[in-house]
Amino acid sequence: MPDTRSRADGARVHADLHALRAIGAYKTGVHKPTFSEPHRQSLEWLVRKLPEAGLTAAIDGIGNVFGTSTKHGPNLLAGSHLESQNYAGWLDGPLGVVYALEAARVLNADPSLKGAVEVAAWCDEEGHFGHFLGSRSYVGQLTEADIDAARDRTDGRTMRDALADMGLAGRARVTAEPGRHVGYLEAHIEQGDTLESGHLAIGVVTSIVGIWQYQINFLGEQNHAGTTRMAARKDAGLALAKFCVAIDERFPGACGPRTVWTTGRITLDPGAPSIIPGTAEMLFQIRDDDPAVIARLEDLLRTMASEVNAQGRCSVTVERIRTGAPAMMNSGFQDAIEAASKDFAGGRSLRMPSGAGHDAQTLAAIMPAGMLFVPSIGGISHHWTENTADDDIVTGAQVFVDACRRILGG
Amino acid sequence: MPDTRSRADGARVHADLHALRAIGAYKTGVHKPTFSEPHRQSLEWLVRKLPEAGLTAAIDGIGNVFGTSTKHGPNLLAGSHLESQNYAGWLDGPLGVVYALEAARVLNADPSLKGAVEVAAWCDEEGHFGHFLGSRSYVGQLTEADIDAARDRTDGRTMRDALADMGLAGRARVTAEPGRHVGYLEAHIEQGDTLESGHLAIGVVTSIVGIWQYQINFLGEQNHAGTTRMAARKDAGLALAKFCVAIDERFPGACGPRTVWTTGRITLDPGAPSIIPGTAEMLFQIRDDDPAVIARLEDLLRTMASEVNAQGRCSVTVERIRTGAPAMMNSGFQDAIEAASKDFAGGRSLRMPSGAGHDAQTLAAIMPAGMLFVPSIGGISHHWTENTADDDIVTGAQVFVDACRRILGG
Repeated sequence: MPDTRSRADGARVHADLHALRAIGAYKTGVHKPTFSEPHRQSLEWLVRKLPEAGLTAAIDGIGNVFGTSTKHGPNLLAGSHLESQNYAGWLDGPLGVVYALEAARVLNADPSLKGAVEVAAWCDEEGHFGHFLGSRSYVGQLTEADIDAARDRTDGRTMRDALADMGLAGRARVTAEPGRHVGYLEAHIEQGDTLESGHLAIGVVTSIVGIWQYQINFLGEQNHAGTTRMAARKDAGLALAKFCVAIDERFPGACGPRTVWTTGRITLDPGAPSIIPGTAEMLFQIRDDDPAVIARLEDLLRTMASEVNAQGRCSVTVERIRTGAPAMMNSGFQDAIEAASKDFAGGRSLRMPSGAGHDAQTLAAIMPAGMLFVPSIGGISHHWTENTADDDIVTGAQVFVDACRRILGG
Repeated sequence: MPDTRSRADGARVHADLHALRAIGAYKTGVHKPTFSEPHRQSLEWLVRKLPEAGLTAAIDGIGNVFGTSTKHGPNLLAGSHLESQNYAGWLDGPLGVVYALEAARVLNADPSLKGAVEVAAWCDEEGHFGHFLGSRSYVGQLTEADIDAARDRTDGRTMRDALADMGLAGRARVTAEPGRHVGYLEAHIEQGDTLESGHLAIGVVTSIVGIWQYQINFLGEQNHAGTTRMAARKDAGLALAKFCVAIDERFPGACGPRTVWTTGRITLDPGAPSIIPGTAEMLFQIRDDDPAVIARLEDLLRTMASEVNAQGRCSVTVERIRTGAPAMMNSGFQDAIEAASKDFAGGRSLRMPSGAGHDAQTLAAIMPAGMLFVPSIGGISHHWTENTADDDIVTGAQVFVDACRRILGG
């Protein structure tokens, strides 16, 4: 029998999501990079909304928004992020923030429930300036030197300048208060098509894969594209293309069943049509929830680089620039989400790993953490056509609010 | 017996080249993109210098500088360009302009010689906004619509805005006056190592290769780099890398003995580390002096694209964006350069084709044209380390001045 005290207000959730969608709208999605004006306005929107849930709102020195409660009892931290990838979807981030806000509105006002839901919007989950800067700041993994070095990957603006433009320069960063929270719960769109193709409503996340990222640099010899004979060339761009193809041929023989790898960016220097590229670089990423698989693939990558260097025409270096251990989600939180799904989603849930990274993996380092997924139409993500059915959005909110109640001991 | 009336002033030539090098200096080279401030200053420098050669100076509406003579008799047009590739060499362009200036200074003041050398600095030979925009404007191949559409390939600034910033908006463009010139002569660094490795001083250019350029676009499906299974991906970047490698494997079987081809730029969209590229594009160039070879290679390129499309995962389109017929250099001009080399370079000259494009190929469409090369140290070009030995610079100037005298009938 569903607990009617957990009833989320579906219309209110939709209204909030559409209000955020209107800030920085791009086609049917949004363009809301970290520390852009639409991002700033979205943070201010949340600051204005949090008092509706009995929370005191503040933005800290890295752009995290917190809504804190004075209600007696255990606190559950819930949230997600408000910035977007460039020209991307409207729900990636805001969905989890609005669910957290809704849970706080429903549960914090309930005198029969001890404790409260506190809300967080973590800054720069999408990695415009780094990766998980907001949540890593909160758990104490981010130094001032990291912030000094961070730059916007799109336009090169320093993070210090961006913080100053936001009016946040010199403001203190909030870090976790030990013992304050019983855990962290986050909702997110699935970003794949597992739920949709299985006609399911809720994903109960079991683990979040680790992300290992590499900068692979090729050094050849810049020269004139008309006067340099083919046999004499040291074309860094061609060496890079061959490396990409070799990865495609050799990784399948060494990967695990769920491993994915991606070359997301390629840059040839100087990038002119009449110049043989002297240097080339690629950003390469591997994801898996098994560190042994990653270690094997990284070995293979370095072996392949050695083979290129042995040929002697171009040289290549492989630098790991991000190491992300996989994070396990708390089993009690998984049970709570599954139980809530039985009551509010007809049991149409599935336990599944997350192939995407989320702030929950950072929070999992210091407290129990859990995640809930709602379906993505066509599995599309990181594109402005990303969407979720209206009914699925409401169902997800109901399950989220009830899962929060269960975790708080209601 | 060398004609002493052709004596160039080597110190003056060096002084002029170093004056131009100081404008927009970058390491031992220059950074002087078309319509940048250093480019503007270089044009102004030439305008101030031309009166030394009895020439009236003017900049036209596309940024070409002309020095025109009122001396009686035939006119020979001579010149090159003053802008550079980004962070490139100091002699690529300025050498030919300073040689032309020097020839005009020596010969126009000589009452025993009928006729004059007129000087041109063609705008944007390096193709920041298009290709050979200045010389193509002069020969009547450039429309106002072409200018409307042109943008800086580095920062996207429109050519109209750039012309306005230069104070050239609305100014008339100068086009060739039929019958005014007996021909066009241009000097340039070789940009290869043929002269250096043969211990030669002068290249007598026989032909300039044609450049065919292609934009090759790949369409896949943008998606999340963590949640999209490898088997389900339509990775436009990987399709592009495979295409580059296939070109490298298949072109050698269809090319001519001197064909060269280059992928100078690759762009993945959106270019983020956690997003599978939905689209990717490459700028691809083929050069040869035999149109039949080019036609065969273009056929192969289109066949390869059809094969990719038949596989169905990603689609690819091949668009030819530049068609450059090879240009033959005038045989009388070749003879004049060779004869001058006998007198002033000990006969250390070689007849050779140019693998690089030059404004002379544009001028060759409307008048006899010739080109002279000086050696490039190590064959390095389009890089700030480009250089030529001081003595070779002086020898080239002597040969150039004497070749101009011979063409003018002295």
